[in-house]
Amino acid sequence: MLSKNIRDDFPVLERKINGNNIVYFDSAASTLKPKMVIEKLSNFYLNNYANVHRAVHTLASESTQILEASRKKIAKFLNAQEEEVIFTSGSTMSLNLVVESFVRSGILNKDDNVLVTMVEHHANFVPWIRLSKLHGYNVLAVYPSGRFGELKLEDFNVKVNPKIVAITAQSNVTGQLIDIKKIREKFPNAIFVVDGAQFLPHAQIDVKDLDIDFLVFSAHKMLGPSGIGVLWGKRELLEKMEPFLYGGEMIDKVSLDEITFNVLPFRFEAGTPNIAGIAGFSFALEYLERIEMKKVENHIRRLTEYALEKVSKIDGVELYGPLNESQLGILSFNVNGVHPHDIAHLLDEKFGIAVRSGHHCAQPLMSILKSQSKLDVFPNSTCRASFYVYNTLDEIDKLIYAIKKVKEWFDVL
Amino acid sequence: MLSKNIRDDFPVLERKINGNNIVYFDSAASTLKPKMVIEKLSNFYLNNYANVHRAVHTLASESTQILEASRKKIAKFLNAQEEEVIFTSGSTMSLNLVVESFVRSGILNKDDNVLVTMVEHHANFVPWIRLSKLHGYNVLAVYPSGRFGELKLEDFNVKVNPKIVAITAQSNVTGQLIDIKKIREKFPNAIFVVDGAQFLPHAQIDVKDLDIDFLVFSAHKMLGPSGIGVLWGKRELLEKMEPFLYGGEMIDKVSLDEITFNVLPFRFEAGTPNIAGIAGFSFALEYLERIEMKKVENHIRRLTEYALEKVSKIDGVELYGPLNESQLGILSFNVNGVHPHDIAHLLDEKFGIAVRSGHHCAQPLMSILKSQSKLDVFPNSTCRASFYVYNTLDEIDKLIYAIKKVKEWFDVL
Repeated sequence: MLSKNIRDDFPVLERKINGNNIVYFDSAASTLKPKMVIEKLSNFYLNNYANVHRAVHTLASESTQILEASRKKIAKFLNAQEEEVIFTSGSTMSLNLVVESFVRSGILNKDDNVLVTMVEHHANFVPWIRLSKLHGYNVLAVYPSGRFGELKLEDFNVKVNPKIVAITAQSNVTGQLIDIKKIREKFPNAIFVVDGAQFLPHAQIDVKDLDIDFLVFSAHKMLGPSGIGVLWGKRELLEKMEPFLYGGEMIDKVSLDEITFNVLPFRFEAGTPNIAGIAGFSFALEYLERIEMKKVENHIRRLTEYALEKVSKIDGVELYGPLNESQLGILSFNVNGVHPHDIAHLLDEKFGIAVRSGHHCAQPLMSILKSQSKLDVFPNSTCRASFYVYNTLDEIDKLIYAIKKVKEWFDVL
Repeated sequence: MLSKNIRDDFPVLERKINGNNIVYFDSAASTLKPKMVIEKLSNFYLNNYANVHRAVHTLASESTQILEASRKKIAKFLNAQEEEVIFTSGSTMSLNLVVESFVRSGILNKDDNVLVTMVEHHANFVPWIRLSKLHGYNVLAVYPSGRFGELKLEDFNVKVNPKIVAITAQSNVTGQLIDIKKIREKFPNAIFVVDGAQFLPHAQIDVKDLDIDFLVFSAHKMLGPSGIGVLWGKRELLEKMEPFLYGGEMIDKVSLDEITFNVLPFRFEAGTPNIAGIAGFSFALEYLERIEMKKVENHIRRLTEYALEKVSKIDGVELYGPLNESQLGILSFNVNGVHPHDIAHLLDEKFGIAVRSGHHCAQPLMSILKSQSKLDVFPNSTCRASFYVYNTLDEIDKLIYAIKKVKEWFDVL
């Protein structure tokens, strides 16, 4: 397990909710932020901040250096080239950039096939589906055949030859880790677009080794600031792609008659970037690297195994996902007869435990869970407790205790 | 003039560059950030931060409340409805949203006319032009007939009946304030898209009184954080518009076959928003409102008048813009025979003065300045000193002295 001192870096953990110490189990939605990341962010704002690029004064060059150093750091983290790292406002925008640019560039055309899965977050589902209605390409979905939303390798034995495979590296509902490398082998000629928003927070990705083409992720799910994410793309493909946002900095020459674009990565970064967000993302990465990503993963794994084992013993609780070693960091469940919003509300009010309840922006997966559910009524949503570096086994014990209590109260009703 | 105490809120002003106190004249690119805005932002991150929406736990509801309070504050600032205030990553994204959504929604069709001006920032020029090449509508440009890029009301006496007028409320190169209300009267039936990025930092806009349809602006140009901006749009139009970004939170129902959208403003806010950025924007607005926007404007006006008067007396300096009361906050100039990058570099290195040099993301306007320039060689760029609440008359004296010195050095060469 990670040192308990890590908790000191997250002052909100000292807060009490109705007299109970806060237990933050909502990291899959967004993680807390370490004190030193926020302090460095403040120092940056107060001492070095200016707009970047196209300026020669000292503050502007300091800001530009910090921004480009962050890009370099992220490129190294992915084993990629700097020019391939594009800053966006987050995973959602990264994915929209890819889909719309594919359409504008003639990479994705009428009658082409795009393969998605039914376990995707809406961010990697809605753009593909909605733009298919406007542009006439086909979207086909892989259905998970395993236990409660578990994608199995054989589910990908499809007859179509997709031009694009859009897939998450980890489900944000079940926590299942998806073996991208093995799936890639089934579609050697497809363009692979990987949603890494849930996966990157506990694992480094080597994009060359995985042999993928695009990867998206967001800082706020890995200790970093709001409003900043990354699109990594293979240079050969990015070079062929029409920009998504047009404006300052992404151009070379501009007149009424003709517009030419800047080189990579700038052609995809129109306007003033989220300068402080980019700086803050690298502070967060530094913090994670100091812990070591492998230790982050091991810590989360230990918490997950413990939680799955304990919760699976509570009668009347339905647990989603594979419930084996491929499930990491997330415990998604329902209590028979109790709406997840009520559970989440009581966990917060009576025990200070923050979990998320809802469809977790994954309605297609909710329809799958519903089809397998043994609950009297499946509420089209789940309770989700998600774990990160600051969580402890003691906190999981609190959760177990609280779930049992909530169950008791509702059994009495 | 504003109280000198304001300067204490900006600790970077105590920094020295090569022994000289920093003089920050680059606010048109991005302003400095007040200590209390950054402190509040840090406190938010460390004590209240969580992901927003669709969650019932305490931190999530605190974050959601702060976010929605910020929306309310901005709506009030604009005299608009809350549902009409859409958070984006900045003005550039706001404008791209409008243009692409117009195309997707059939509001902007083949052979329609869009009127822009040659003084626009690339953010309000490149999206219109580039997407016209892909979709076959026409873009016509109004040329400024006045002194060095000065737009005159009669320049808008055009024969076309544009469907859309896309126009800035203030030039980011000359500082000219554009009389949107009078121009609107010339095109009563057009959809008015107004770029307020340079204007809002010193003025409140009443969108109803101005009778416009869309307004965009960015927090970072008005003491706020990076990566957050606003698109305000008239409800009747927003209701007809296809979303720009697809993903979580912006949907109602999602399946493979059908997707339905959330209500305003959420249908235009896919994914996790820049939560801290939105909070920080309202802290910045609070700070500005405490000063009072009218006093902000008066302060900048006094500085501008003083600077224009002094600099216009220096031989061999060419000053751009109308040079009258319609020019606010910006001094754009060249010194004959010296490249603006060299001037900016020397002002920084020898005097600690931060000005921006370049085309300021306004290449179309550079071509206009070039046509009127009396310089031996027009460098297709200018030096731009821009003023804000923390600047003083003393600092302008320093600039005048420094420009004279730089001129002397180059005269000797």
